[in-house]
Amino acid sequence: MPHISNKGKGMPASPIRKLTPFAEQARLQGKTVYHLNIGQPDIETPEVMMNAIRNVDFKVLAYTQSEGTISYRSKLADYYNHAGYNITAEDILVTTGASEAIVIAMQTCLDPGDEIIIPEPFYANYNAFAWMSSAVIRPVLSLMENGFALPPVSEFEKLITPKSKAIFICNPNNPTGYLYSYDELVELKKLCLKYDLYFFVDEAYREFCYDGNTFHSPMHLDGLDEHVIVFDSVSKRYSACGARIGCFVTKNKQVLATALKFAQSRLSPGMVDQIAAEAALDTPDSYFELINKEYTERRDFLVNSLNKMQGVYCPNPKGAFYVVARFPVDDSEKFCQWMLKEFEYDNQTVMLAPAAGFYSTEGAGADEIRLAYVLNKEDLAKAMICLDKGLRAYPGRKLRVSPANAAGTVFI
Amino acid sequence: MPHISNKGKGMPASPIRKLTPFAEQARLQGKTVYHLNIGQPDIETPEVMMNAIRNVDFKVLAYTQSEGTISYRSKLADYYNHAGYNITAEDILVTTGASEAIVIAMQTCLDPGDEIIIPEPFYANYNAFAWMSSAVIRPVLSLMENGFALPPVSEFEKLITPKSKAIFICNPNNPTGYLYSYDELVELKKLCLKYDLYFFVDEAYREFCYDGNTFHSPMHLDGLDEHVIVFDSVSKRYSACGARIGCFVTKNKQVLATALKFAQSRLSPGMVDQIAAEAALDTPDSYFELINKEYTERRDFLVNSLNKMQGVYCPNPKGAFYVVARFPVDDSEKFCQWMLKEFEYDNQTVMLAPAAGFYSTEGAGADEIRLAYVLNKEDLAKAMICLDKGLRAYPGRKLRVSPANAAGTVFI
Repeated sequence: MPHISNKGKGMPASPIRKLTPFAEQARLQGKTVYHLNIGQPDIETPEVMMNAIRNVDFKVLAYTQSEGTISYRSKLADYYNHAGYNITAEDILVTTGASEAIVIAMQTCLDPGDEIIIPEPFYANYNAFAWMSSAVIRPVLSLMENGFALPPVSEFEKLITPKSKAIFICNPNNPTGYLYSYDELVELKKLCLKYDLYFFVDEAYREFCYDGNTFHSPMHLDGLDEHVIVFDSVSKRYSACGARIGCFVTKNKQVLATALKFAQSRLSPGMVDQIAAEAALDTPDSYFELINKEYTERRDFLVNSLNKMQGVYCPNPKGAFYVVARFPVDDSEKFCQWMLKEFEYDNQTVMLAPAAGFYSTEGAGADEIRLAYVLNKEDLAKAMICLDKGLRAYPGRKLRVSPANAAGTVFI
Repeated sequence: MPHISNKGKGMPASPIRKLTPFAEQARLQGKTVYHLNIGQPDIETPEVMMNAIRNVDFKVLAYTQSEGTISYRSKLADYYNHAGYNITAEDILVTTGASEAIVIAMQTCLDPGDEIIIPEPFYANYNAFAWMSSAVIRPVLSLMENGFALPPVSEFEKLITPKSKAIFICNPNNPTGYLYSYDELVELKKLCLKYDLYFFVDEAYREFCYDGNTFHSPMHLDGLDEHVIVFDSVSKRYSACGARIGCFVTKNKQVLATALKFAQSRLSPGMVDQIAAEAALDTPDSYFELINKEYTERRDFLVNSLNKMQGVYCPNPKGAFYVVARFPVDDSEKFCQWMLKEFEYDNQTVMLAPAAGFYSTEGAGADEIRLAYVLNKEDLAKAMICLDKGLRAYPGRKLRVSPANAAGTVFI
């Protein structure tokens, strides 16, 4: 029997999806499973987008340009310019989700062994994309106690080597929900200029900033045209994860020309999905006002509920729709699996994403969990009751000194 | 300014798409460009598929399972079982086009430096996919004079090293149109078993076999369950290139479990496209009968027209919708570029794919061109006139002894 490659063996499994077989088993046993593990919102996709799909009127479902249709890219450029990016359609490469954009950027900018510095915890699949490209992630620990703010730039600087090629942040952050400030971006800009690094930024959650906070992008900063590559996606913005349309935006022409070769090898993004994504740009502002209000309420409820649970600590983030919380458990992966396999309350359980996979430092995040507040408040309330009951019943529940409490309160 | 990676610099440009800027320029000059460079048929997508898109009735355009929806995979398994593959839905991973399936297979089965033996010319993007995975293609030359039949297995055997991991064929072949016989597959089976190699087969053109010839798959052969990985796509079968749905089929559970990790990292294939692809499975047989008749007529016309042109030689293939022909030119890439930049006949010109990019041997195929017979006969007729005129006018037209003619006739 032929062998699996080491590349294949070492490929990290998705912490967001790897427990899926257990969830499926729970479902087959008749349990209701509340999915807080994945950023799949229950918010309705905008009508303009769905109608565009229903109204397709061509005869041949054809390839588009590898870089995406010119009509979509033009309208998308308008969207970004409205946000102050000062770009043209030529600066955009349409991709199959932000995932593909990130893989292409890694291959375009990093050779095997080259390093990319990322504050951790970070979106788990960055580990996978780096592994696929044989790039090396050098993590800088961000602290739950600071709400996962940007670590001091001196911590990044300590990791600089001749192999360092890029800084990578996700803003607002998945999984922590942290919204980077303008000043934090300026700090990273200095670093990128000093060491001639690419500045990768995943802005899939750009529209989700709460409590009146403003979103900032490195695209707003002068002098970084050759450095910044933005990754984006329609998945979260329009609650259209199944559309698989993202993009790659940069003013660096050489990067874009190189990225296009990767894009051409896979021919083109989906035609219908591009039509839908183009139509989505006409989504009225009222849609975002409504869903931002909705997400704010969900976050408030979730954070509040978690912090009320004995031994749980959860910061209150300003963006995206995730939190990372600390749980009084021996091992969060075991706990998440146990919740699906062994536990039920009133025939319900909760699926969560263990946070260890969102770190690249071995052993980090072992008592942390990412939760996505993507369910309506009623389901969220049921999920929180269920989670609290589960925590109380979990055999691996662990006495611990709360790291959030310097006074060292011991709790069960 | 940060550097482009060597991986990015060395990434081969698509020979199918790299002349696109010249075609665009020609179009802007008001020329009609006949696109024979790309496998984008003008055949209408089946109504059942388009209607499925128009009838989508869900509220949230959501992620699907990473491996594809169970309903699509189940129905797809039926399709393959009708073709004698003896598989289940569990043996299928739905991918974003066959392109993604091939990239995943390369990463799952080959480590950097590992080798894959492919008869050349082969689909150009295999070079790109291998490059992305740092895998090495070891080509075995197939000869135009044999209609690009499978080279003797002894030629493959000469290339076997400890790094050899897979044999890879495309059947029916893109770019040559060659349809592999049952006996040829059996020869390759022996080789795979003898050296414990994976048997990769790209079957995107499975439904396009002409002149009463039968399609055979390594899935029909006993004893290869752990070896065979089939790549497939709805792009050509249903003239739905823009749907970006392919798949990866294997009975090797370990391969599939590993491939799933790669699939999970990019979350899921498109939801609407999967719905369309599932509906496409209800396409009536009459659709295929009609288009196979149409492609047969186009092939006959194309091959006949090409062989009538002075100095052109083109075999008559039995499958897919491509031919590779030899042209009396100094360099086919220069010629193809010249056709777009300098030439016009009656304000028309033709876009073609220079064949050198379909070889991995340096210098091979320099006077060959791939043509796709994807246009209706009227346009094809105009394109052939145009091409004949272009060849006569081309300054790099070259005196040569016809390799198709052992007697060595000299012609202009």
